[in-house]
Amino acid sequence: MRKIGISEIEDIATGAALLGAGGGGDPYVGKLVAIGAVQECGPVTLLDPEEVPDDALIIPIAMMGAPTVLAEKAIGGMEYKRLYDMVSKFFGQEIYAFMPMEAGGVNSMLPIAAAARLGLPLVDVDGMGRAFPELQMVTFTIGGIKATPMALTDEKGNSCIFETITNKWTEELARAVTMSCGASVSVSLYPMNGKQMKEFGVHGIVTRSEKLGRAIRTVKDCPDRVPEEAFLEFTEGFKLFKGKISDVLRETRAGFNFGKVVLDGIGEYKGRSAYVEFQNENLTAAVDGRILATTPDLISLVDTETFIPVTTDALKYGKRVLVVGLKCFHLWRTEKGLELVGPRYFGVDTDYIPVEERCKGGN
Amino acid sequence: MRKIGISEIEDIATGAALLGAGGGGDPYVGKLVAIGAVQECGPVTLLDPEEVPDDALIIPIAMMGAPTVLAEKAIGGMEYKRLYDMVSKFFGQEIYAFMPMEAGGVNSMLPIAAAARLGLPLVDVDGMGRAFPELQMVTFTIGGIKATPMALTDEKGNSCIFETITNKWTEELARAVTMSCGASVSVSLYPMNGKQMKEFGVHGIVTRSEKLGRAIRTVKDCPDRVPEEAFLEFTEGFKLFKGKISDVLRETRAGFNFGKVVLDGIGEYKGRSAYVEFQNENLTAAVDGRILATTPDLISLVDTETFIPVTTDALKYGKRVLVVGLKCFHLWRTEKGLELVGPRYFGVDTDYIPVEERCKGGN
Repeated sequence: MRKIGISEIEDIATGAALLGAGGGGDPYVGKLVAIGAVQECGPVTLLDPEEVPDDALIIPIAMMGAPTVLAEKAIGGMEYKRLYDMVSKFFGQEIYAFMPMEAGGVNSMLPIAAAARLGLPLVDVDGMGRAFPELQMVTFTIGGIKATPMALTDEKGNSCIFETITNKWTEELARAVTMSCGASVSVSLYPMNGKQMKEFGVHGIVTRSEKLGRAIRTVKDCPDRVPEEAFLEFTEGFKLFKGKISDVLRETRAGFNFGKVVLDGIGEYKGRSAYVEFQNENLTAAVDGRILATTPDLISLVDTETFIPVTTDALKYGKRVLVVGLKCFHLWRTEKGLELVGPRYFGVDTDYIPVEERCKGGN
Repeated sequence: MRKIGISEIEDIATGAALLGAGGGGDPYVGKLVAIGAVQECGPVTLLDPEEVPDDALIIPIAMMGAPTVLAEKAIGGMEYKRLYDMVSKFFGQEIYAFMPMEAGGVNSMLPIAAAARLGLPLVDVDGMGRAFPELQMVTFTIGGIKATPMALTDEKGNSCIFETITNKWTEELARAVTMSCGASVSVSLYPMNGKQMKEFGVHGIVTRSEKLGRAIRTVKDCPDRVPEEAFLEFTEGFKLFKGKISDVLRETRAGFNFGKVVLDGIGEYKGRSAYVEFQNENLTAAVDGRILATTPDLISLVDTETFIPVTTDALKYGKRVLVVGLKCFHLWRTEKGLELVGPRYFGVDTDYIPVEERCKGGN
């Protein structure tokens, strides 16, 4: 158990944006919401998963929809209280703690804001260890845990609770309501007990985000290290490419941001080219036509000088980026995990091969 | 209090189709559902509104979506029990009785099926006295009663409960989920107590439907009467036109059936022409370009020989129909009522003038 305040939030936001793998929204917007809540209501207690009783009711808090819309619509302030009340009434049980569902610039931050505003603890765990675009794409689905009852509310005060026969149906119905509410709502889904959270959750993800964020902030302060090497070592990242963005193709379809970013090599990659394809999050990275990493491994683009993560929303012509691959959470590499989030689910016609295998022998 | 069984259901379905004003779906499909339930579970107790205690919890049962889809998807059998459980749990109170929300071929029938299957009584009341296309279009909206908590379930077992800030938002969100569930779901909305039901409901609508249905069935059995005259007298209908359908224009937009039926006069109307415009239900009837009736008054087309109502779904070239106007429930003629369901709400650029005024001096 420890407290997280404003300086921790700054680092968590940066680190979670790296784990967002291009998605998860702008960490700046998420940070504003979390810092605002902590300034008003005080710091948040972060619990280790093992500190949570097996029968405690734990609910994840997240936003659903387009993070870019969140920046314009903001959050009304009463959403977390309404979500708490709906889920608590449904189960006839008090809620013990909140948790994040994914790592990303926005959804790592909102649970902190909720915990601050309601005076509840936050658990150091999530259901992805990265960001993914659809709500059934969580480790809890592998564990057979249902997404419902799922509570949803908008900033105006409309709300609903879903119960569905599959997590894919939850996605379908909640997505429809989200679009009707203006493409950005607050949700609580996958309510679970402490035992389930401990068995299937990605432990320590908040702390990992914070450490990654701190590393990014301080990597250039080591006088005896090449910053890029220090960055790769600390993040345990595989260097996939370094280049200048020469083209960005985007398409918004069914509420998702699809696209492709094309890179011209710089430095030791001069004369070579690469591309990264995405659906909210980065799906594949290929260098000279050869795929070097695919979902569910993380593909992140970071600024070559500051190592600040660049989300797909922020991709711009001329920007210089380092493309890194990070190993995903082990459950994603199982057969069930790959059915949910492997390359073929996203329409990418290739088998999943772990990033460390694909990069063997260098690129 | 009285019992309704199969023969009553037959008449109620026919009469409700007349009150459906072109909408409300195919009475044949509705009848099958209600008769099936009564055959299996026994007849239903029909309560007079005055027999219901003021503090009893009463919930309407209806389908939302396209009645034509219902015919293909059918009803799974567990929907009413799920709706009962969801609403009852929400209020922490047993449900005293079901009621219909509108008069129409389908939505007059489903509450009978629900009452039979759950062994609950049905109240002889509804919220329209006819059919309308959108869910905020009920007398209870005039009474300031909220549509939510609204429970919704599909035949597969997906369900949700909405709470919204306005009844228009309920329509918006429930419509989105309905479309995602395949355009036909079972719902319970406007939960209310006995007092509210008595104050704003359309009393005696089930009995009125039954009487109209019986009249249609027996009108030709009076040896000393011209059937058409007897039909108009019994229904208190205004004869607007008689003609042969020469054209039907249809367009499906945003989940509604829009269209226009054009008629060439027959009998005393020979040489004249008329049209009826509709959005699920008939909105306006005009003869030789002069409007003779508009929503919220009822415009119904019936077969010239059998007087069986013809819904907008069943309009076909060459069919001979009598166009009748019926006075709507008095609350629809108030300022608040006309805001909800007057011609201008539906984009018809004319003031509301009661059908009996428009028809003064004959046509």
